[in-house]
Order: sequence, then structure tokens, then C-alpha cells
Amino acid sequence: MQRAEPQDFARVLSSMCTVPHPKARTAAERFLTTNPGDPGTYETVAALEEKAIGMLGAVAGHPSAGGYIASGGTEANIQAVRIARNRARTHRDVTSPNVVVPESAHFSFTKAADVLGIELRRAPLTDYRVDTDAMAALADEETVLMVGVAGTTEYGRVDPIPDIATLAHEYDALCHVDAAWGGFVLPFTGHEWNFAHAPIDTMTIDPHKMGQAVVPAGGLLARTQELLNPLAIDTPYLESTSQVTLTGTRSGAGVASAVGAMDALWPEGYRKAATTGQENAEWFANELSARGYAVVDPVLPLVAADIPHETIRKLRDRDWRISKTSSGELRIVMMPHVTREMLTAFVSDLDRIGQK
Amino acid sequence: MQRAEPQDFARVLSSMCTVPHPKARTAAERFLTTNPGDPGTYETVAALEEKAIGMLGAVAGHPSAGGYIASGGTEANIQAVRIARNRARTHRDVTSPNVVVPESAHFSFTKAADVLGIELRRAPLTDYRVDTDAMAALADEETVLMVGVAGTTEYGRVDPIPDIATLAHEYDALCHVDAAWGGFVLPFTGHEWNFAHAPIDTMTIDPHKMGQAVVPAGGLLARTQELLNPLAIDTPYLESTSQVTLTGTRSGAGVASAVGAMDALWPEGYRKAATTGQENAEWFANELSARGYAVVDPVLPLVAADIPHETIRKLRDRDWRISKTSSGELRIVMMPHVTREMLTAFVSDLDRIGQK
Repeated sequence: MQRAEPQDFARVLSSMCTVPHPKARTAAERFLTTNPGDPGTYETVAALEEKAIGMLGAVAGHPSAGGYIASGGTEANIQAVRIARNRARTHRDVTSPNVVVPESAHFSFTKAADVLGIELRRAPLTDYRVDTDAMAALADEETVLMVGVAGTTEYGRVDPIPDIATLAHEYDALCHVDAAWGGFVLPFTGHEWNFAHAPIDTMTIDPHKMGQAVVPAGGLLARTQELLNPLAIDTPYLESTSQVTLTGTRSGAGVASAVGAMDALWPEGYRKAATTGQENAEWFANELSARGYAVVDPVLPLVAADIPHETIRKLRDRDWRISKTSSGELRIVMMPHVTREMLTAFVSDLDRIGQK
Repeated sequence: MQRAEPQDFARVLSSMCTVPHPKARTAAERFLTTNPGDPGTYETVAALEEKAIGMLGAVAGHPSAGGYIASGGTEANIQAVRIARNRARTHRDVTSPNVVVPESAHFSFTKAADVLGIELRRAPLTDYRVDTDAMAALADEETVLMVGVAGTTEYGRVDPIPDIATLAHEYDALCHVDAAWGGFVLPFTGHEWNFAHAPIDTMTIDPHKMGQAVVPAGGLLARTQELLNPLAIDTPYLESTSQVTLTGTRSGAGVASAVGAMDALWPEGYRKAATTGQENAEWFANELSARGYAVVDPVLPLVAADIPHETIRKLRDRDWRISKTSSGELRIVMMPHVTREMLTAFVSDLDRIGQK
């Protein structure tokens, strides 16, 4: 049934969210009145959440992973830091915990540092990937967590995850992988990024990004369910006895849509989206290169290019929703709703407007 | 259109969430693919959120309140504590911040204390309402926030909000009101609980509870938008420059449903639900009293009663979703979906099962 969308994705090239798969939408609507935060009352969706984590674990190379469907990648990242911080109180002798992350790490780690009262140390990059020697130089006996990004926000790069995990464990720190966006693309590449490739401890992987589920459906995975214990808060009046989530009441629609999407799309649907996205990224990168723009070659379905600020402003005036890297480059994310036609139209507008 | 609900509310007496108003559901479905966490991309729902806060402010006695639609009451409570903690760094000389709350305060304050690294001090109650002398005894020069609850989770009581606000400001602390559940009922009572009644600073008030919006739609209100500044985190790659929310990507469906619900129900629809809920609470309390059970007289649409644990267990075996207070009493919340027929059926089952 055609709905009048208030959000027309026809010109959205900026978002890491996308049009949900029809089965995700149907599931969301069906479970709109459920709350997995109260599993004693809402048993059906509580069972669905277990199923969702099993499926998410399979995508991430660890079908028996622990975890839960979070409000989003921000919550998952905050909670990963909180696990490490709280665990260090019982397992380590740390007074001023710090976390070492790549400079490319999402701003949710800055938020986590403020919220959780930990020190954030950002390691510089080489060729858009974190320099693990620099991470080692920043680490010390108070380091509780090291983070690698699998699909960076601005350039779509994959950090050297196995090296980061090894390094983290040398410091008796946990290792977290932020695959919020990359997690549903990377299984179809040769990158080493997940629980099967490296001894990582936790991961962020969001069904509501490349997973094509509805918002809100982020994902926090842990190698074991026990790893989540430092997050537990007693819940006296609920039929269940404690909860590990950051939020209380939660969206059953998000949980159900995650199951619906993964059921419909894993693995072939996601493979197709990843392949098409990468083809689009490479086509687009070539189009910009051919016009003389400096382009960051896409490793994953995301393209950054040096376009004049004035041109970007004019493209936005023509209703293109586009983003910029912190260096000011144009950044286009090849989500499943982004078609070759959209990109062709964009390039046409660029030609009309662009000056070099 | 009739949908097969996986969550049948016909026997749900435990939840503080309810069946969303049809206009809330329609709005949610329409905005299912939008993300107000990226207002530059999703402009329509960003404007809706401003509208939602204006409406929520009107319900809470302050139409020009600042705030945002949160993932839920837990986030709103965490953020209220975070505002007070962060603000104290610049406005106060505090090294070990503490927060004074009633013993009846929701477990999200325990979660907030863990997450934010602050000390929680719980003041005892007298007749189920917090003892402000006890709050004063617990406060000191490191107290950054005092909390009053307007509609307590277990007994539906309203704390002496004006006194708590006065006390908080004597200690140069902020005053937060948790009206997550009570906020859409209290306007139709004589209680003093909101921004017009007392110099409170922040409030939690959740559209997805008595507001009849879909999950997730919590609400954080502040007397001024500036009060939210201590929460701000820069957002480099978004078209907007910073965000104050705890989560990143957010549900546009929740925001839109809040507007849809309040548009349809404020004030007369909410008045009706509050009145009916209170009538149901009083009827139910009388039925239990008449059977010899000790009942906590309902001040708001929530009833607690001393029922044997074995009876509660058997009622749950008959598929009634009911909760217990931390003292083990039966606790029934008269949400809009709870009908006199449901309660009559429940009492019948209680008679069949109950032993006294």
C-alpha cells in the first residue's frame, strides 16, 4: 500500500538509515504496542528479541553471542564503554579509567566519555585507518577498553581489528568493534572484523542502518551474556528481576522489525545490497574523479570527495540531503535506497552548479 | 483495520504503557522511516518535535518549556541527573556530587547513579510520600539535584513538589519532577506538581505512558532550553552542529505519535481517561476492601493491595499480567485500556482462587 511519506528518500544521500524492508515495516506495525523492557508482560516480543540476537550474532560470526536490541548505535557504544569501566572495578585496579579509540570513532564515544566520566584518548590515523602503534602509545595501566571501527562514519574504512584486539588484551583491556554501519556489508568482503576473525569482546551492529530494520533497532553484542552483567540494575516492580539496557521501556516494533528484516534479507538480500552499494560507490567515485575532483577511493559503499563548500551549499539548496566530513569533504553513503538514477541526477546537478 | 495483535492488552494490568490512540498509531506508521536525531535530513519530523515539546509543556504548565522527546522516562531521568551533575562543574564547587531522591523513586535513578558516577541518597517516606525533613537531613553542599515524584510507580502518590523545589534551591541544587506516568492525569486533579505550581527545573513526562502515544516517546522538559546545554555533544558530520540527547538516531514514529495523541486527546480525552481511571481505581479498591484485603487507597489511578503471594502466582497462571510492589503487594495500574469488565473478570478470578 502506497503511503504518502513525509520523508522522501529520493534525495537523501546523507543518512546511514534507509527505507525499511517491507517485512520489517509490517513486523514493526504489528508489534507497535509492545515493550521488551517488560518481558514478563510482553512475552512474545521478548522471545523475538532472543531470536534477533541469535540472527545478529550469526551476521557477526558468533551465533551464540549475548546481547540485546538497543535504541541505537550510540547506546550500544555507551554500554560497551560502561561494561569495560564497571568490569574494571572488580577485575582491575583502576582509579581513572581511559578508553583508546581511533580519531575516526563516532561522536557517540565523546558522549560516552562525558556520560560515564571516563577519559577518551583518540589515536591518529594513517590512510584513514587507525595507527595501532599510536594506540599502544596512548594506552597504559588505566586503559579499560580499546575500540576499532569496522566501517568508519566518514570514510567507510575498516580498522585492523585483529591487531587492536591483541593489543587490548595485552593491556588487560576489553576490545570493542563499532560495526554499527559496516556490520551488514562486511560479511560479503574479505575484511577481518568480527567475533570469528578476532578475540573481540563486544560489538555495535545496527539493524536500523544497513540492516534495513526500522528505527529504533541498534544492536549490542557480547562474546558471552555474562559480559553484560556489569550493566545489570535490579527492577523491583517488574515480573523480571533485572535489566542490562540503558533505556527502560523499549520499542518492540524495533525488535520485531530487526527479525523481519534479517529473516527476509540474510544473507542473499544483504549480499545484493552490499554489492550494489559498492558498485554505486565505485561508479560515483569514477564520475567525480573524471571531473577532476579529489576522491577518497571507496573501500566500502561510502564516498568522500573534495568539493567546494559553495557547491555543497548549492546542492543542499536543490534539496539534496548530503553530509560533510569534519574536513569539509562531501560524503555520500550508498544505502539500499540510493539508486544509480539518483546518483546520475546528483552528478547532473553537480555539473550544472559545480566549479573547480 | 483490525490487526492481529501479538500483545493482547485484555489481561494486562501491570503496564504503565497502553494501547496507543488510533491517531498516534497512524502518525507513527507515517513517520516510521524518519530520524529526528538528524534534523538537517529529516526536517518534517524535526519540526514536529518542536510542536510536541510545546504541547507537552502546555500539559506541564509551561508552554515555552525546553526539552525533547526521549527514548523513555529512564533516559529523561538519567539526563536530568546529568544536567545537574555537569552544571555543578561550572556553577558549583562540587567534587563528589550526590542526588537526593525519595525511596519511592523509580529504579532508573539507580541506573543513573551507576551510569553517571554519582551518589544516590534515598529519603524515607511517610504515608507513601517523601519526608522532606529527611531529604534535608540527607542533603549537603555536594547535593546537585533533588527529585520529587508526581505519581509514584508503586502507590501512585504525589510528593510535596513545592516544598522539594524550595529545599533544593536552598542547597543550590536543581529540582527535578518525575511525572513520567502521572503527568497526563495530574492536570485534572488539585495536586501541585508542575512548572506553574513550583520553581522546578526539569521534568520527566512520558507521552508513551498515560499520553497514549506509541513506544518510544518519553519526554524531558526543562524550564529553559539553555538548561539542556550541559548535555550538548558536537556532531561533526550531521548538518546540525550538536545534540543534547542521550541516544543518537531516534524514532520519528515516537515523536509523530506524541503529537498525534496530544492533538486528539488534550485536554478532554485525557480528562476522560483520568476520571475513568480514578473511578476504576476506587471501584477496585472497594471490591478488595469488601473482601477483607488491606488496600492502599488510590490517590491516582493505581491500586496496591495486600494479596497472598500464592494468590498472585495463581492469578498470573491464569494469564493476568500483574505486578508487585517491592513489599510484595499486588499493584494494578488503571491505564486507558483497563475496563470495568476486565476488572470484574479479575475480581471473579480472585474470588475463585483467593484465600484469606
